[in-house]
Amino acid sequence: MPVFTEHSSSSRNLRVLPSFAAPLPRPAPPFEPQSNGEKYEVVIVGAGPAGLMLNLLLSRYGLSDTSLLCIDSKPSTLKTGQADGVQPRTLEVFKTLGISDEIENEACHMWQFAFWNPSNDKDKIIERTAVVPEVLAPSRFSYEATIHQGRIERIMETDLLRYSKRGVLRNTRLVDVRIDEESDAEFPVVVTMDTNGEEKVVRTKHLVGADGAHSIVRQCMGLRLEGESLDHIWGVIDLVADTDFPDIRRRCAIHSPAGSVMVIPRERISTGEYLTRLYVHVPETVVPDNDQDQVLDANGAVKAEDARQRRSKITQDGILQQAADAMKPYYIRPKDGVVDWWAAYQIGQRVSPQFIVNDSQGVGRVFIVGDACHTHSPKAGQGMNVSMMDSYNLAWKLIYHVNGLAPEPTATGTPTPLLDSYQTERHQIAQQLIDFDRKFSTMFSGKMGATEGLTQEEFQQAFKLGNGFTSGCGVEYPESTVVLRDDLEDSTSPVKGTDYLSGILRPGRRLLDVRLLRHADGSPRHIHDDIPSTGRFRVLCLASTDLLDRQSVSARALDAVSGLMTTFPVSIIELIVLHPKLHRPFEWDDVPTCVKQRAEMRFHDGSALDDAYAIYGVDPAKGALAVIRPDGYVGVVARLDHVSRVEEYLKRCIRTVNEG
Amino acid sequence: MPVFTEHSSSSRNLRVLPSFAAPLPRPAPPFEPQSNGEKYEVVIVGAGPAGLMLNLLLSRYGLSDTSLLCIDSKPSTLKTGQADGVQPRTLEVFKTLGISDEIENEACHMWQFAFWNPSNDKDKIIERTAVVPEVLAPSRFSYEATIHQGRIERIMETDLLRYSKRGVLRNTRLVDVRIDEESDAEFPVVVTMDTNGEEKVVRTKHLVGADGAHSIVRQCMGLRLEGESLDHIWGVIDLVADTDFPDIRRRCAIHSPAGSVMVIPRERISTGEYLTRLYVHVPETVVPDNDQDQVLDANGAVKAEDARQRRSKITQDGILQQAADAMKPYYIRPKDGVVDWWAAYQIGQRVSPQFIVNDSQGVGRVFIVGDACHTHSPKAGQGMNVSMMDSYNLAWKLIYHVNGLAPEPTATGTPTPLLDSYQTERHQIAQQLIDFDRKFSTMFSGKMGATEGLTQEEFQQAFKLGNGFTSGCGVEYPESTVVLRDDLEDSTSPVKGTDYLSGILRPGRRLLDVRLLRHADGSPRHIHDDIPSTGRFRVLCLASTDLLDRQSVSARALDAVSGLMTTFPVSIIELIVLHPKLHRPFEWDDVPTCVKQRAEMRFHDGSALDDAYAIYGVDPAKGALAVIRPDGYVGVVARLDHVSRVEEYLKRCIRTVNEG
Repeated sequence: MPVFTEHSSSSRNLRVLPSFAAPLPRPAPPFEPQSNGEKYEVVIVGAGPAGLMLNLLLSRYGLSDTSLLCIDSKPSTLKTGQADGVQPRTLEVFKTLGISDEIENEACHMWQFAFWNPSNDKDKIIERTAVVPEVLAPSRFSYEATIHQGRIERIMETDLLRYSKRGVLRNTRLVDVRIDEESDAEFPVVVTMDTNGEEKVVRTKHLVGADGAHSIVRQCMGLRLEGESLDHIWGVIDLVADTDFPDIRRRCAIHSPAGSVMVIPRERISTGEYLTRLYVHVPETVVPDNDQDQVLDANGAVKAEDARQRRSKITQDGILQQAADAMKPYYIRPKDGVVDWWAAYQIGQRVSPQFIVNDSQGVGRVFIVGDACHTHSPKAGQGMNVSMMDSYNLAWKLIYHVNGLAPEPTATGTPTPLLDSYQTERHQIAQQLIDFDRKFSTMFSGKMGATEGLTQEEFQQAFKLGNGFTSGCGVEYPESTVVLRDDLEDSTSPVKGTDYLSGILRPGRRLLDVRLLRHADGSPRHIHDDIPSTGRFRVLCLASTDLLDRQSVSARALDAVSGLMTTFPVSIIELIVLHPKLHRPFEWDDVPTCVKQRAEMRFHDGSALDDAYAIYGVDPAKGALAVIRPDGYVGVVARLDHVSRVEEYLKRCIRTVNEG
Repeated sequence: MPVFTEHSSSSRNLRVLPSFAAPLPRPAPPFEPQSNGEKYEVVIVGAGPAGLMLNLLLSRYGLSDTSLLCIDSKPSTLKTGQADGVQPRTLEVFKTLGISDEIENEACHMWQFAFWNPSNDKDKIIERTAVVPEVLAPSRFSYEATIHQGRIERIMETDLLRYSKRGVLRNTRLVDVRIDEESDAEFPVVVTMDTNGEEKVVRTKHLVGADGAHSIVRQCMGLRLEGESLDHIWGVIDLVADTDFPDIRRRCAIHSPAGSVMVIPRERISTGEYLTRLYVHVPETVVPDNDQDQVLDANGAVKAEDARQRRSKITQDGILQQAADAMKPYYIRPKDGVVDWWAAYQIGQRVSPQFIVNDSQGVGRVFIVGDACHTHSPKAGQGMNVSMMDSYNLAWKLIYHVNGLAPEPTATGTPTPLLDSYQTERHQIAQQLIDFDRKFSTMFSGKMGATEGLTQEEFQQAFKLGNGFTSGCGVEYPESTVVLRDDLEDSTSPVKGTDYLSGILRPGRRLLDVRLLRHADGSPRHIHDDIPSTGRFRVLCLASTDLLDRQSVSARALDAVSGLMTTFPVSIIELIVLHPKLHRPFEWDDVPTCVKQRAEMRFHDGSALDDAYAIYGVDPAKGALAVIRPDGYVGVVARLDHVSRVEEYLKRCIRTVNEG
């Protein structure tokens, strides 16, 4: 194209880069490093999935390297990871962070779960008795992805480095943590670390322990993991399988007279071949460990020597033989005799009763996330997911507190209800995880068949019931500061229905994704694309069929919400507007001015693609309002003529401006 | 998870990286840099979209930095790009390269094209007369994406750097190219360049000129762009629009009594605002340039001083005023008075009659791609796309030649038919592009209305007809070495139908994407995911309904194809197998062994999601074979009992092994 004149603004030169998330506003005074020693606002210990997720979120929210420090004792991201499953809900979250692509493109997608059980035909030995979808809960992603944990960590760390110059400070081991308010009440957490062999002491306002099952943070805070250990021993092996087993690319629960195997198909590797993971139940049983001793032993040594000796007998060949026996009459062996990775472990379920340590004023100073507060078996593919979701829950609460976005403490009650809700919400999930895992592991470890123990129907049923949990989509937080649910039972509730897993709006559950048609450009959209993980609250207005009338309930509600938004810090609340099927075509002029002003690119037809109103349980004639929290969970639901309820909820979560 | 034993293979440590494309085999002797001066196998001049695409593909195919050199005179990727449109077909190609995500996530997606025309109601002045889908041709992507050209370049360059340590050699200007067979017939192309002010001479087997409209390569080779210049002048401006025009987020062709404007919505920028591009037809007309002089002038100076003076009168304010006038009664102005970028140009359509320069033996040595061989107006969003597709067409032919994968020359005919097909295929497209652009530009520049010139119905009709071309999905290459179509007209053809744009298999057209259900894991797939841009040929077998019978036509065809594959270099041909709806469920044991051996993860149910057989025009009772070229185009179609036709085709494209 023969251009003969060209002029460009300077900002244009930056347009070649990928988009960055906009940082959150900060009413609090800017953090400035002080001369009297190294100080931070937040220190994170551990850069596994939970620590990296927190580090990434806080960096995106706007904490700089001077305010935020993440340390890890390892020299690089995990290379020999154990976890491999990414749940649909975790994928949804990755998508709202813009980091799901590599998993979508390159992970193994498990769409189906096959059940193999003893056959009545003795020649067949085992037979496929059912194939069910792997993910039963409605979700933006209808599969579970499997991929090397080290790769998940690398994806997050790569993105982190767009926001943080330093990234994770590696080769740095936590030595000690204590709370010392007397010397410095603003930075009461004293952190002693060993960085490349040198001891260093820093202070911080808050510290998060994401340092795994043997968490030093937890031990320094005197917190105990509580629970019991079952006596099942499992072996796990990753290999390129040479096999004639027909379902090697499906997730399988195989119960054979010779034992049990779980088959987890994995991603393609550089040779073009596909990995398979096998979990086998090793018949050797051991005396249960005293897990408390094991956990509390500061040296990390396992004391139960007896059990240890027995476990040490478990070998690669033993695991392989066990798998081969359970899969007969089919053969399975490692291609070219090479095993990619193997490990053995004993199932133990434990949870810390306390996830937060407060200072004397009741302000949360030390938090634990992930394996540091709950450990369990790996088979339901939960661990990495629940751990990252701990951080996803904590991150926005912590930044609201640090940035001065949280409401001022009131005279009565806890001074930091927003922070406290981390314990309320995630401890319940951890307990559910432990309970579910115990049930699932026991079932899976037990023998199965027509004549003894659990029937395969019972096993399948348990799988189906647990799917809301294992997919991550069925999580429901209890009522708290950030979940307002009290009056929903009455007849005036704008939401009807109870099938929350299928999308009925429910405070405490995540907003289900629906497909919408955008008014401005006729572009099909996912509502999840309107709730990226940028730390903002969203008011979702499902306008009613009267939207085009000037003095309608919908118009008044929109105007009131629009006005309400101005009482909070700029940009902290975004408006999303859906409309139902209306009786005539319309233009921007026909809807309240605030719709174009505040939601030009977030104003959608809620009936053209999915029937969003039906999915959310909202009557198009009545409409509804909902507040979506920064982590995508519904905080409150209200009638269109009840904007004061939305206001009440928002004031619990966000400080107001220009008042009084 | 309390692991107590863990062992890992060393290769496992690499699993954290994103996948790499597997390089092509190389029957030719390895390239080793010789001591007598710097030599390359391929030198690329210019790292715009066309040059980067070629560089990226050849690097992925396996050419190392010692064998492949790409130079560019600029110090970095384009910052102030002009092109912005990415066609559905280009997106399909990016997807097969694994580099489409950022465009899918962050570009503006144009789904609709709105037509605004003079209204009979004088108060309205203009009115929206139609909204049609932007993309009418079936495609994996049903929208056109718009995004800053510099960003497209950055995406390709980032990926390139995974394969090439050097990347593009920048600040390096081509000075001269000539062919000198006498001194060195193996490396006959002599390249003189100025790299950071130092002159340097290198030799290469092949050189590709991707150096834009004023191509030095083209000039050195004595090739001329031919064509004419119309006398329309256009202004283009990028801005964040403050406007009450209701369709500012749709692509619009606005014809007003006061002039014409084309509105192109663009991506969101870091402020959270959205860019808009406006093309306006500036009423000032000029004497047409002597384009040949302009092009051939080695100093790059434009001689037509008269025209130049007139054009220099075009200013930012003039363009804005013109746009504002044409959009009345709506207002439009740059938000905060800031314009992002603006330029003015004169429409000229030219094409080089020759895209290849051969040596005395008839071997293609110098190639030109992109703007170096065709220039035209930007309005149909063609330029960047057609340019990258030139390279996409050339890349696999060039690597087959360089790597010794192409058939040995026969005594009769051209020695390099594979290379020659680049000219056959892409010159025709360039000519079509010029013809289309001339028609489209004239239409768009012309006045329109009820009383004069083209009617809006005619304009819309032209848009619809042109959509196969503008989407990139309607490209059809003529018969050649690599497109075998001769006997398809007869009644024995396995493909029925002529609606090629909608997917009927047609040698010379790209294979339309369809959705399939994979046998191995029940995973829904796109067939395009089975044809990544790794340089491989694929034999696509649409098995017939007799697949489960042992001695069926399908089984014999599959065995024959499997045998045929062994006569070509290992891994150069991949097998994809579809099956129609069959009369009973089946297992791997029920289909020919070669299906699992060669296509375990590429064996799909072709009726469970899309009806692939109907889309491709294949009778499920008869089935069909097709060969898909490395660039995704169908090369040949054959009956299941006519594997020799597949063999004939493949032998035209690929050398055989172990023969004679």
